[in-house]
Amino acid sequence: MFIIGELINGMYQNIAKALKEKNKAVIQECALEQVKAGADALDVNCGPGSRDPVSDMQWLVETIQEVTDKPLALDSSKPKVIEAGLKALKHKGVINSTTADPEKLEILVPLAKSYAAKLIGLCISSKGIPQNKDQRMDLAATIVAYCSEQRFPIEDLYLDPIVMPVNVAQAQMKDILESIREFKIISDPSPKTIVGLSNVSQGTCARSLVNRTFVTMAVAQGLDGAILDPKDTDLMDALITAELILNKQIYCDKYLDAYRKK
Amino acid sequence: MFIIGELINGMYQNIAKALKEKNKAVIQECALEQVKAGADALDVNCGPGSRDPVSDMQWLVETIQEVTDKPLALDSSKPKVIEAGLKALKHKGVINSTTADPEKLEILVPLAKSYAAKLIGLCISSKGIPQNKDQRMDLAATIVAYCSEQRFPIEDLYLDPIVMPVNVAQAQMKDILESIREFKIISDPSPKTIVGLSNVSQGTCARSLVNRTFVTMAVAQGLDGAILDPKDTDLMDALITAELILNKQIYCDKYLDAYRKK
Repeated sequence: MFIIGELINGMYQNIAKALKEKNKAVIQECALEQVKAGADALDVNCGPGSRDPVSDMQWLVETIQEVTDKPLALDSSKPKVIEAGLKALKHKGVINSTTADPEKLEILVPLAKSYAAKLIGLCISSKGIPQNKDQRMDLAATIVAYCSEQRFPIEDLYLDPIVMPVNVAQAQMKDILESIREFKIISDPSPKTIVGLSNVSQGTCARSLVNRTFVTMAVAQGLDGAILDPKDTDLMDALITAELILNKQIYCDKYLDAYRKK
Repeated sequence: MFIIGELINGMYQNIAKALKEKNKAVIQECALEQVKAGADALDVNCGPGSRDPVSDMQWLVETIQEVTDKPLALDSSKPKVIEAGLKALKHKGVINSTTADPEKLEILVPLAKSYAAKLIGLCISSKGIPQNKDQRMDLAATIVAYCSEQRFPIEDLYLDPIVMPVNVAQAQMKDILESIREFKIISDPSPKTIVGLSNVSQGTCARSLVNRTFVTMAVAQGLDGAILDPKDTDLMDALITAELILNKQIYCDKYLDAYRKK
């Protein structure tokens, strides 16, 4: 499971403040805590309040790289911000994200290829959020087809079915879970799959429970990655146990500790 | 989700003692606690120490029926013990269980039919425990074929893929989960699926976590029922949330309470 820690995001007040004050310690501590909790990579998002996201992204990337070599997922809807992050990266990173819109794919797929970055492809377009599995499959196929044409390695593509909050789109949850399974058969080699997890519990009263239940169900459908809060111990315990059940971790009595120490 | 409470079982010391002393209060309290926790039915097993399981089964059934109308799952490897339970039942019950062996099917399928009972079919035979998905599918198909021939209603058949402990059969877990999905396409109408859950965590150091993670993954594959400890609140919370995600419970902020009060 490719776990991307979600906590370095300017939508959180502590990060927005640190970014404004250029307080490296706050950012670096947040990075190290997530790595310690089991994150394989760290999302980096300047947030909606950033006045100069190009320079903020560059500063965040440089700041985080002073304390960890983990891959960074450059999270912005603006290709220029992503490119600024890519230029500052010391290691192979992740572009978070392209949509299925041609104007996004045409910029971001070549960028991902030239920087040898992984690419998250959101199954969404300027026409709106998909409303069923067929629409998700169509959007996924559009992204896979473009990547194939451009000879972008499909095993570095992570398709995101777009997870909706369970309290507003309950009837779509089953489709979202099945999309994760069916994305894998769009091409050979298969694209990978990922979810931005926290959205599923937005506005609910049992956020951690909803998050960990949904992600466990998604892992059962073959999910390869998730953007989440790795400091949620119950969530990580569930994920590690799901991986154990799928024989992706070797069983030992202390398998939870063993995973976190790996 | 058809939840069968597992706690009235003579393998537990309190139940064995109550059975020996014919202490109704202990049995009835255990029944009511499980119903309160969300059990839809109650397993009834005399345990390995019973000297007269035919009479003990009859006593247990009568004792439990004094306090609840929930269906009872008559749990024995001996058809005579099951028949004693069936004769004492006031309501439609569950036979737990037949194997895929002809000598079991020939007795238990007609019994289930004549008592209009649900039937749990274990995907196991006298040749041993299945070692992979193909063997599970073969055993499932044998049971479904026999039930169809005998005109037993397939929607009352619950196939159990045989859940092994994750610490001894880790490589089989994925096959077990996929069997749950594939059993559904053996016939139309589909057979239902069930697991004896607690076995998955036997001998592990994080039993509740392993149980709830496995059952959540199984629900994602279409699981219809489980025999489990309904007094494990974390387990029931996970199950209820998985049902919510599959749109089988209506969302409300207090959906956990709402489910338990239903």
